[in-house]
Amino acid sequence: MALKLTILGCGSALPAKKRNPSAQILETPDGLFLIDCGEGTQLRLRQEHVKIQSISHILISHMHGDHYLGLVGLLSTMNLLGRKKEIHIMGPEPLQEMVESHSRFSSSMFQFPVQYSVTDSKKSEVIYDSVKLEISTLPLKHRIPTTGFYFREKPKPRRLIKAILEQYDVPIKERVDITLGADFIKDDGSVISNKTLTKDPSLSLSYAYCSDTGYMPALAKRIEGCSLLYHESTFMEAEKARAKKTMHSTAAQAASIAKEAGVKHLLLGHYSARYTELDALYQEALAVFPQTILGIQGLVIDIDKICS
Amino acid sequence: MALKLTILGCGSALPAKKRNPSAQILETPDGLFLIDCGEGTQLRLRQEHVKIQSISHILISHMHGDHYLGLVGLLSTMNLLGRKKEIHIMGPEPLQEMVESHSRFSSSMFQFPVQYSVTDSKKSEVIYDSVKLEISTLPLKHRIPTTGFYFREKPKPRRLIKAILEQYDVPIKERVDITLGADFIKDDGSVISNKTLTKDPSLSLSYAYCSDTGYMPALAKRIEGCSLLYHESTFMEAEKARAKKTMHSTAAQAASIAKEAGVKHLLLGHYSARYTELDALYQEALAVFPQTILGIQGLVIDIDKICS
Repeated sequence: MALKLTILGCGSALPAKKRNPSAQILETPDGLFLIDCGEGTQLRLRQEHVKIQSISHILISHMHGDHYLGLVGLLSTMNLLGRKKEIHIMGPEPLQEMVESHSRFSSSMFQFPVQYSVTDSKKSEVIYDSVKLEISTLPLKHRIPTTGFYFREKPKPRRLIKAILEQYDVPIKERVDITLGADFIKDDGSVISNKTLTKDPSLSLSYAYCSDTGYMPALAKRIEGCSLLYHESTFMEAEKARAKKTMHSTAAQAASIAKEAGVKHLLLGHYSARYTELDALYQEALAVFPQTILGIQGLVIDIDKICS
Repeated sequence: MALKLTILGCGSALPAKKRNPSAQILETPDGLFLIDCGEGTQLRLRQEHVKIQSISHILISHMHGDHYLGLVGLLSTMNLLGRKKEIHIMGPEPLQEMVESHSRFSSSMFQFPVQYSVTDSKKSEVIYDSVKLEISTLPLKHRIPTTGFYFREKPKPRRLIKAILEQYDVPIKERVDITLGADFIKDDGSVISNKTLTKDPSLSLSYAYCSDTGYMPALAKRIEGCSLLYHESTFMEAEKARAKKTMHSTAAQAASIAKEAGVKHLLLGHYSARYTELDALYQEALAVFPQTILGIQGLVIDIDKICS
């Protein structure tokens, strides 16, 4: 399974029609990661038929309400539905206090373990590392400590060419090594090169989630060549001063980061409620970076497909 | 204006389709009172076209998430929309800590004053008292400290009979006293009785909100003759043992409180997510108390109309 993203909400602080606050589900080879969890996320998960007990990690970018106010409700529902499996919550330090104070207020303890990893908005750190996937934080520029998240698939095994393997009678037990790059040495000592036996691996995909942030040119270098960049675009250029003051970005600024970083695709979101129609905002980004996708609620993006 | 109730949510802890968690708006002669504020309430207010800045008081029954998790989001939205007018929050003690810790996490202070009144779940107290309206708490029986809320309109002025006033040439300045029960004394000393000049006042209406609570027969006496009783009915009788254990009520129990109290109408709500259809639950209550209304999301009840 490759990376598949579902937009649960693409609004900003003020709720707008059909724009719930920030929340996304990323399906990865290691399971489901929920990124941000604004108010109403549990309902949105339900509407998108996401199995909430399959979520293993919840990543929170920062402590503004539109990015985390749905967390306690979601955890409570997981609990009521009988969850026993651990959940990992990664984000700013106050998250643990916030969740635990709610348990105290309501005199109810979760029946599953909750692990917390505190993110540091001052530096980029690897916060998740497995055979198939690495996640690191991306320090962002906002009014309070904020990090983005950079998901990168690890290099994948080379793909075996069945017909050639059969031709050279390659035993099953040798095959894993061959996917990792080994040549095949026949009983007579002759060598069949790995290149003959395999095709290049599938592309390792990556996804960068950058919200909320002011315009931050230095970000481009950190996410160079990324398959899909989600970059907040709260405002249009006409509101550039306001974007700067509130430490948000315009659609053109998001597109310019995408262009500078040479990403494959840019995904917009976190729109101000003032934009009831998004076409002009979309056009503003497209003019700078043509491979732009207008994020809307319910959109599902198969990152493998759009990059192949 | 009499009392008018809008059901914003009628679900319980687990969200169900078209059943948001607890929240109601009561329109009173003194303005808008929000009763409970589960996750997503601000969106429901928007859908029902309620002017959120007109809400003057928010009453929270208890600290279970499905009754208060929408509060911080709603206050944040009021703030973003420029509210300057004070708001009163009435409920259990931890509410203030909860709201203020969110302000601390997000480094954002509300630009309007927030007044807190702490409710005491051990005794009934008057928490609001004006010329036209009184609100007192109703101690309930739940797993954590919980109070219901009893809204009672004060006795209304007697209604002047215009034609009779004109017939006796009653000066304008005398009329307020007459609405309060005074007779009219003519210049020649003769007395026109109040009864001749006025009709009985309109009915003073009352609304009792009782959620969440286990079966509590003693409640009936406190709300005797109430115009409309909202009593939670999380379960049906088949789940009576579960209702007892979790300190909730069955539909039949809610109806039996209504019958015992001699209320005019009973309103059901706070349904368990296990009931996808509510007809059987409704029938269970109707069999005990015929003047039962099945609460559903979006229902608006003009308490004056149903009682006249």
